[in-house]
Amino acid sequence: MTSNIHYPNGKTIKKAAIPKGRHENTIDNHSGRGARLEEDLNASNTYYNDIGAALIHKKPTPIQVVRVDYPSRDHAKIVEAYYRTPSTTDYNGIYKGHYIDFEAKETRNRSSFPKYLIHEHQIEHLKKVAKLGGIGFFIIRFSHFNETWLIDSSDLIRVFEQTKAASIPHQWFCENGLLLKEGFMPRINYLKAVDEKYLKGDTIAKDN
Amino acid sequence: MTSNIHYPNGKTIKKAAIPKGRHENTIDNHSGRGARLEEDLNASNTYYNDIGAALIHKKPTPIQVVRVDYPSRDHAKIVEAYYRTPSTTDYNGIYKGHYIDFEAKETRNRSSFPKYLIHEHQIEHLKKVAKLGGIGFFIIRFSHFNETWLIDSSDLIRVFEQTKAASIPHQWFCENGLLLKEGFMPRINYLKAVDEKYLKGDTIAKDN
Repeated sequence: MTSNIHYPNGKTIKKAAIPKGRHENTIDNHSGRGARLEEDLNASNTYYNDIGAALIHKKPTPIQVVRVDYPSRDHAKIVEAYYRTPSTTDYNGIYKGHYIDFEAKETRNRSSFPKYLIHEHQIEHLKKVAKLGGIGFFIIRFSHFNETWLIDSSDLIRVFEQTKAASIPHQWFCENGLLLKEGFMPRINYLKAVDEKYLKGDTIAKDN
Repeated sequence: MTSNIHYPNGKTIKKAAIPKGRHENTIDNHSGRGARLEEDLNASNTYYNDIGAALIHKKPTPIQVVRVDYPSRDHAKIVEAYYRTPSTTDYNGIYKGHYIDFEAKETRNRSSFPKYLIHEHQIEHLKKVAKLGGIGFFIIRFSHFNETWLIDSSDLIRVFEQTKAASIPHQWFCENGLLLKEGFMPRINYLKAVDEKYLKGDTIAKDN
């Protein structure tokens, strides 16, 4: 029997078409982001939103629109546009009264995480988040092992800046990250790890 | 020389036709956003960012990319794409440890603010922000009077839902909003109004 997977982005993928044990989107795309992790996080955020637990969204990719055509009265078709470099991380929002901000990256490497997947503007942004009292982290997936880690932004930035090599050993993530459980709903329960790491003893939104 | 301005709603306006001293973008476009208010807010946010006071960004407009050409190796040119409806407000970020979320709208009307400028998804989003303990508001500009108001999201949503008319009287904003001072740096010091309205007695980021 073939069932389809309906992703929030409108793509429908035939389940049978995907070879077992492989995910079609695990390759790093041009911006170094694996699309399957992004889909898992979007689905998790939709779930958190639906149950009223948190409000966290992926920011749209910034695009510079140069030319728009109007094939019909109410229909705008962009016919010339370019990708722009973002100045922030991809995800932010609110959870239990706290500002949440993170970047997600995926690699198929087995032994280490390539540093080039994280960009300078993301590091600078997360440094500022920490200074201003927000909760900032990275979600890093080693897709070969099907392992997804939550790492505090300050921890990863520290090793990032101290490491002269082009990549950070997989072992470092095992020692410094929180392994995120994957499931059905939510697909990745990363807010449970946020509770554990940042909000121990916290009960509920406290401000205002 | 005449250059044209292409608006996303299909209007093309000859630049030369715009009288000097007036901003060509103050008209309400199809999404109800005046571009000059947006520019003022972006400049203010850049300033707040530069001095380390806050980290607040306008989210990029969500665009569905359908087709990309590669005229050269490292150069991606989007040749078919469409505007998508956002599911959130335009601005969010962190200030003094608090999650900040708002929508900005501009009207040239003198007597009232047209309700159609605020969309259902923005109302739903800001209701959730308030529930989760964030600071949510609207920034509304009456450009004819050069008045810019900060209004608590719950206040505006209440009158919005109680008002059967198609617009909310200007007088209501005078009675319920905080008038934002315009200056050089920042152009609109809306975080001062946030201090006044939400953070009285607050000193500095307190969490974590």
